[in-house]
Amino acid sequence: MQVSETVEITGHLMDSGVLARVLDDVLDYGGDYTIERLDVGKTHEDESHARIIVLIDSDEDLQRLLMRLQTHGVNQVDPGAAVTKPAPTDGVFPEDFYSTTNLETVVRLGGQWVPVEHPEMDCGLRVVNGRVHTVPVSDVKEGDQIVCGAGGVKVVLPPREHKALGDGFEFMSSIASSEKPQALLVRQIAERMREVKIDGGRILWVAGPAVVHTGASMPMAALVEHGWVDVLFSGNALATHDIESALFGTSLGVDLAHGAGVEHGHEHHIRAINAIRAAGSIRAAVDDGVLKSGVMHAMVTAGRPFVLVGSVRDDGPLPDVYTDVIEGQRAMRAQLPGVGFAIMVATMLHSIATGNILPASVPLVAVDINPATVTKLADRGSAQAMGIVTDIGLFLEQLALELVPGYHRD
Amino acid sequence: MQVSETVEITGHLMDSGVLARVLDDVLDYGGDYTIERLDVGKTHEDESHARIIVLIDSDEDLQRLLMRLQTHGVNQVDPGAAVTKPAPTDGVFPEDFYSTTNLETVVRLGGQWVPVEHPEMDCGLRVVNGRVHTVPVSDVKEGDQIVCGAGGVKVVLPPREHKALGDGFEFMSSIASSEKPQALLVRQIAERMREVKIDGGRILWVAGPAVVHTGASMPMAALVEHGWVDVLFSGNALATHDIESALFGTSLGVDLAHGAGVEHGHEHHIRAINAIRAAGSIRAAVDDGVLKSGVMHAMVTAGRPFVLVGSVRDDGPLPDVYTDVIEGQRAMRAQLPGVGFAIMVATMLHSIATGNILPASVPLVAVDINPATVTKLADRGSAQAMGIVTDIGLFLEQLALELVPGYHRD
Amino acid sequence: MQVSETVEITGHLMDSGVLARVLDDVLDYGGDYTIERLDVGKTHEDESHARIIVLIDSDEDLQRLLMRLQTHGVNQVDPGAAVTKPAPTDGVFPEDFYSTTNLETVVRLGGQWVPVEHPEMDCGLRVVNGRVHTVPVSDVKEGDQIVCGAGGVKVVLPPREHKALGDGFEFMSSIASSEKPQALLVRQIAERMREVKIDGGRILWVAGPAVVHTGASMPMAALVEHGWVDVLFSGNALATHDIESALFGTSLGVDLAHGAGVEHGHEHHIRAINAIRAAGSIRAAVDDGVLKSGVMHAMVTAGRPFVLVGSVRDDGPLPDVYTDVIEGQRAMRAQLPGVGFAIMVATMLHSIATGNILPASVPLVAVDINPATVTKLADRGSAQAMGIVTDIGLFLEQLALELVPGYHRD
Amino acid sequence: MQVSETVEITGHLMDSGVLARVLDDVLDYGGDYTIERLDVGKTHEDESHARIIVLIDSDEDLQRLLMRLQTHGVNQVDPGAAVTKPAPTDGVFPEDFYSTTNLETVVRLGGQWVPVEHPEMDCGLRVVNGRVHTVPVSDVKEGDQIVCGAGGVKVVLPPREHKALGDGFEFMSSIASSEKPQALLVRQIAERMREVKIDGGRILWVAGPAVVHTGASMPMAALVEHGWVDVLFSGNALATHDIESALFGTSLGVDLAHGAGVEHGHEHHIRAINAIRAAGSIRAAVDDGVLKSGVMHAMVTAGRPFVLVGSVRDDGPLPDVYTDVIEGQRAMRAQLPGVGFAIMVATMLHSIATGNILPASVPLVAVDINPATVTKLADRGSAQAMGIVTDIGLFLEQLALELVPGYHRD
Repeated sequence: MQVSETVEITGHLMDSGVLARVLDDVLDYGGDYTIERLDVGKTHEDESHARIIVLIDSDEDLQRLLMRLQTHGVNQVDPGAAVTKPAPTDGVFPEDFYSTTNLETVVRLGGQWVPVEHPEMDCGLRVVNGRVHTVPVSDVKEGDQIVCGAGGVKVVLPPREHKALGDGFEFMSSIASSEKPQALLVRQIAERMREVKIDGGRILWVAGPAVVHTGASMPMAALVEHGWVDVLFSGNALATHDIESALFGTSLGVDLAHGAGVEHGHEHHIRAINAIRAAGSIRAAVDDGVLKSGVMHAMVTAGRPFVLVGSVRDDGPLPDVYTDVIEGQRAMRAQLPGVGFAIMVATMLHSIATGNILPASVPLVAVDINPATVTKLADRGSAQAMGIVTDIGLFLEQLALELVPGYHRD
Repeated sequence: MQVSETVEITGHLMDSGVLARVLDDVLDYGGDYTIERLDVGKTHEDESHARIIVLIDSDEDLQRLLMRLQTHGVNQVDPGAAVTKPAPTDGVFPEDFYSTTNLETVVRLGGQWVPVEHPEMDCGLRVVNGRVHTVPVSDVKEGDQIVCGAGGVKVVLPPREHKALGDGFEFMSSIASSEKPQALLVRQIAERMREVKIDGGRILWVAGPAVVHTGASMPMAALVEHGWVDVLFSGNALATHDIESALFGTSLGVDLAHGAGVEHGHEHHIRAINAIRAAGSIRAAVDDGVLKSGVMHAMVTAGRPFVLVGSVRDDGPLPDVYTDVIEGQRAMRAQLPGVGFAIMVATMLHSIATGNILPASVPLVAVDINPATVTKLADRGSAQAMGIVTDIGLFLEQLALELVPGYHRD
Repeated sequence: MQVSETVEITGHLMDSGVLARVLDDVLDYGGDYTIERLDVGKTHEDESHARIIVLIDSDEDLQRLLMRLQTHGVNQVDPGAAVTKPAPTDGVFPEDFYSTTNLETVVRLGGQWVPVEHPEMDCGLRVVNGRVHTVPVSDVKEGDQIVCGAGGVKVVLPPREHKALGDGFEFMSSIASSEKPQALLVRQIAERMREVKIDGGRILWVAGPAVVHTGASMPMAALVEHGWVDVLFSGNALATHDIESALFGTSLGVDLAHGAGVEHGHEHHIRAINAIRAAGSIRAAVDDGVLKSGVMHAMVTAGRPFVLVGSVRDDGPLPDVYTDVIEGQRAMRAQLPGVGFAIMVATMLHSIATGNILPASVPLVAVDINPATVTKLADRGSAQAMGIVTDIGLFLEQLALELVPGYHRD
Repeated sequence: MQVSETVEITGHLMDSGVLARVLDDVLDYGGDYTIERLDVGKTHEDESHARIIVLIDSDEDLQRLLMRLQTHGVNQVDPGAAVTKPAPTDGVFPEDFYSTTNLETVVRLGGQWVPVEHPEMDCGLRVVNGRVHTVPVSDVKEGDQIVCGAGGVKVVLPPREHKALGDGFEFMSSIASSEKPQALLVRQIAERMREVKIDGGRILWVAGPAVVHTGASMPMAALVEHGWVDVLFSGNALATHDIESALFGTSLGVDLAHGAGVEHGHEHHIRAINAIRAAGSIRAAVDDGVLKSGVMHAMVTAGRPFVLVGSVRDDGPLPDVYTDVIEGQRAMRAQLPGVGFAIMVATMLHSIATGNILPASVPLVAVDINPATVTKLADRGSAQAMGIVTDIGLFLEQLALELVPGYHRD
């Protein structure tokens, strides 16, 4: 009564532990497996290849398991052709829709393997005129042709190119990463940023209000001015505290000793918001001479785009903030083309949101003083994620010392 | 050139430490003070009364300082009458608007002290037909009469009524709270909840997805069924994981050992969202027999309202989720009347959002395994906040044992 | 110029990820490998077997790498016979001594495989009259015959016997552990404790002062009285706060909201210590009627042994406390025979100390509200370690409810 | 039936919140109070003076309460003369012994106020030939004359001399401390260290193994070489990992992402210990050319003393380690004279131990990435404690940049 399927995976299966995770997932989903064949890479440089028969109770379960295994780069040996069905109504996928990974993906349509445009996890695949792109459930329209089941879909693991990050630069998945001296890590990240710029890539920052609270506005603004921040994703809080600090010369009351910013209800922040609302926008406030310094001022002056997306705890918010979170996600997606490196500092909410929409091919560094945040980010999706548990204030200070000629804190 | 004002405060100034905080704030704002008079409560039962002259550089700074001091219950001795000015445009307050506290407040209008309706922090005060209510900056309309400056406004500290919570029940502000046995604290919270219900009050819960992850869906649903949850504030995550668990019999992959829920991208959650979107709403999914168990099922069946407000990291979201966070705040505000007790478990984002709109007069208990979350909540505004650092799963289990007759986990 | 050795490992290599860790370690130590042969367990039930050639620069490096790999259960295919050398002086091993794991180990001596008595990690192997036992460096005597190099030594991985812990009981190494409801975990631990007692095993507890601070003295004492605590390892702090609470009716000032016990210098604890010093010992204080309740009183009354080992931060200490930590370790080792289960609550120092001397064959549960402590313990050595991040007060309360007939908190 | 006593306190009672804490303690100890008189400092510069009558049930309780209040600087208006009694036996105080604070203290003997030598908390006061010094309970001898009860003892609060630390330098007790930029804090600590050296004071460091794990051995060694470390307190772990790193070129496997060093049982550390044991001592290993770099090498070469005190979790230990913790405490005490500044990095155990024996007059900075550690240290005793939550690696790197001419990490 059980159904089965033969799947395969190629890569550095032994030293990455991915095969163990694949087999764990088969069992987790209630299935079982037989390892049909395993060609082991004899040396560290060789790739291995595994062929596994998975068994499970129903075809529905099988389809889900196959999608799950694709997050590890496991494909069906004989994937057949993709099946599409029309979306039953706006905002709803067909029941058995294919749920995407963030890996490079190809779909078998009309005898051809068609690459998926803009890989993003937890989306559907929409087929239009023989092309395939990801679509979030909120954006699907009635009648859209959506790929269903796991048939006809293959994913490709990113190559293991640690070298690109320089010797000694290791990823989160390798336990070695944290044995490195923090000062060395900063230098390696700076090196990586230079390489990305030389290759014409854009650098995406995702930042939280602790950038202001830890006194790192100055190095952050210097990094913006010298071209190291191509686009910024954040929320109402970073921009508000940054602007409050610029307008009122105060930093919000924050108690780092308790491990978290404690906001004391100073009315300055709501007054700062009101001032920008009166100006009409952050850009207008810069143009009017109301806003004269800080991170947001630097972004406007440098002509770099930013996307601020609101949350339910926001006061105000600033006029530039997307209050509709789904529209905010769309605005963030629109900024992703060309991004070659992402750096996330001191924010869990916006970092996870960004991790949700980033393809796995973009290297990602998450920096936070809270180990839980770093672990959560580095575990989400991207095979190229590195986490660093350190102090944001000192981290940005040292990064500015590396990247900004003549940088010196007065 | 300095301006000054005489202010006063009455209460248990000595044993609460409030006077120290008042004087700290005067210095923090760049001012100085002279204690003109201090009548000390001779015994523990007596209130003290202080009269303080504050000096500061400009009238603008003075107004801000006076507003700041009102968060501690400090009023001007001679507040005069309130001044109102029209809002210059939609969504913008006059520049020198009075920024509210969450304390009970009265405004001097036309020779009378008028109470402010629905106290909420970080709002403006709108005067309509001789009545005064709080208005958030996003809701103000051009021409609305808004109170400006600190003149003509007085606040009232909530009475110190520890007794109401039973012997041994202590508030966060008192360091004694945490010396209490956890098991005793649960019993005292249960007792308090019974009292609130007897008094006709409603009990507000704010909950995060860890309720599902720690296996506490069952006690939480039991509490709902027996009438201990009158209204629930949450986000897309709690509802999605609860529904995913009900539909697929799986709990999302969560690694508590790392101190945080780590989501592993199981596609089940996006499939669960799609199923509810197909049904049209959570209620419709219950009515159609699609959703048959869990916390959200219990809320619908018990006919209790819930407000789900989205965030930028959401997948989907569920059709019941407010994607516009400002509309979500409005929906939350609409549920506050009658609330006599608030309990916040395992969520920072929605708990802070709720703390932002709750009047200080509503007692509030924040429960989380992360001390930073508890500290952040208990420090925000409410004079009646208590924080408990404990395990959500065991906490809800024990609360159900106290409040639900015959409750037993199978 | 490189030297090489062929090693092998048998077990559930695929789904446990151990092979990946083995290969990582080869690279970490500067070596390289060729996988000569890999017989994969075709199904979940079958064991796999791997044969790997490791290459490295020098014989000295090779010996170290081979010892390292033994911590994963990897043995040489042809280990040869053990070599022993005399210890050069008291308290010093020969330079190339074999450094032990905590796994079951056998040594090839005179053509026979001799089992090592009392496996313990980071020790040497002393051969006396054809028998082999572990010896810590502090206890070795000049001239003792000590096994040197990795030759002639094999280790045996404990069998994967999850079943013994009951259905649903999962180990730390499996990420599934934390998806379980906390209330269910408590029940499973109780079940395991019953099984251990039925099998004639002793239950070892390692506990910190938070047992007292969280109000869990009562359930802990009840567990002692009903025979669930056969031996207790702790320090001066637990015993002092327990006795202080019994003598003065106070609990030490502790601020759990800040995530850690904050001691406020109440002089009660030093006075309690003085009272016991005056009596001569904890037992004498019980006999004299000075100490009448609490955990230590229960231990004495039940006739169960305890080992208290001091630390540099201790006041006093109590007369029962070993002030010499090496003597303290010896006293702890002397209590290990017969221990079939170890439970560690709310202490990092003494839990790590115990983990250092426990053989890998003893199942171990570490319970703490701090995820870092739990991770650190569960990662140290024992293949049978499980970590639970939860509240100590509620955990012990629920465990007493499970194990102590008629237990009810008044 | 109640007994009462009139006490007084002088200082900046209002803005420090100390009066609130005094009154809280009276109630905590089961007493009650009447504020007889309160002369308020009219301005920020003026001191206040309070006179309070405390009431409590028995004289025994009164004596304890009076001792407790002395930790806040509260003295009896009429303390009378001190009473001494002989210690009943070695290592035991008379039952009603006076338990010390770490404040400057004077004792009324024979009509004169005699200053206490070497203030230290939780000790007794021994009178010998008209002089008074602190004695820990472990060192008292039978027949020693020990001060009993609170009579005849007065304490003196340290003056509030924030200025000495430079503008902007704030103490832990002030919430303002954490609003400062981290980079600025490092500079201020460096400034303070220069001042202490100019005044002829010694700088005491207390450090944990994370100094090595975070790659900060190089800046720490540079600070030693340039005279910024006069004495070092630590345990077996820092020295062992430092030496292991010097001997084997490896850093111990540490997983910072999990918020704590996770030791993976590399045998290198036990081999490093054995090598030093073979040499006889760390100094001998330096002299023999075995140990050529690292922090301990720098200490030996610079001729600076260090005190290493063991703990129950130690392997080995190194021959320099005190295995008897009480003897270790004595060795630490012997190094305190002349210490003018204490800096504690990345260790809770040894930092608390040091805090226990330091007089309140020595300024103390505690640095750790874990907020709980910093809070615990800063809350213990010293009125001059400042806590900084930051990354040890980057902190020491920046401190070396400030203090070591030409310091540059290669």
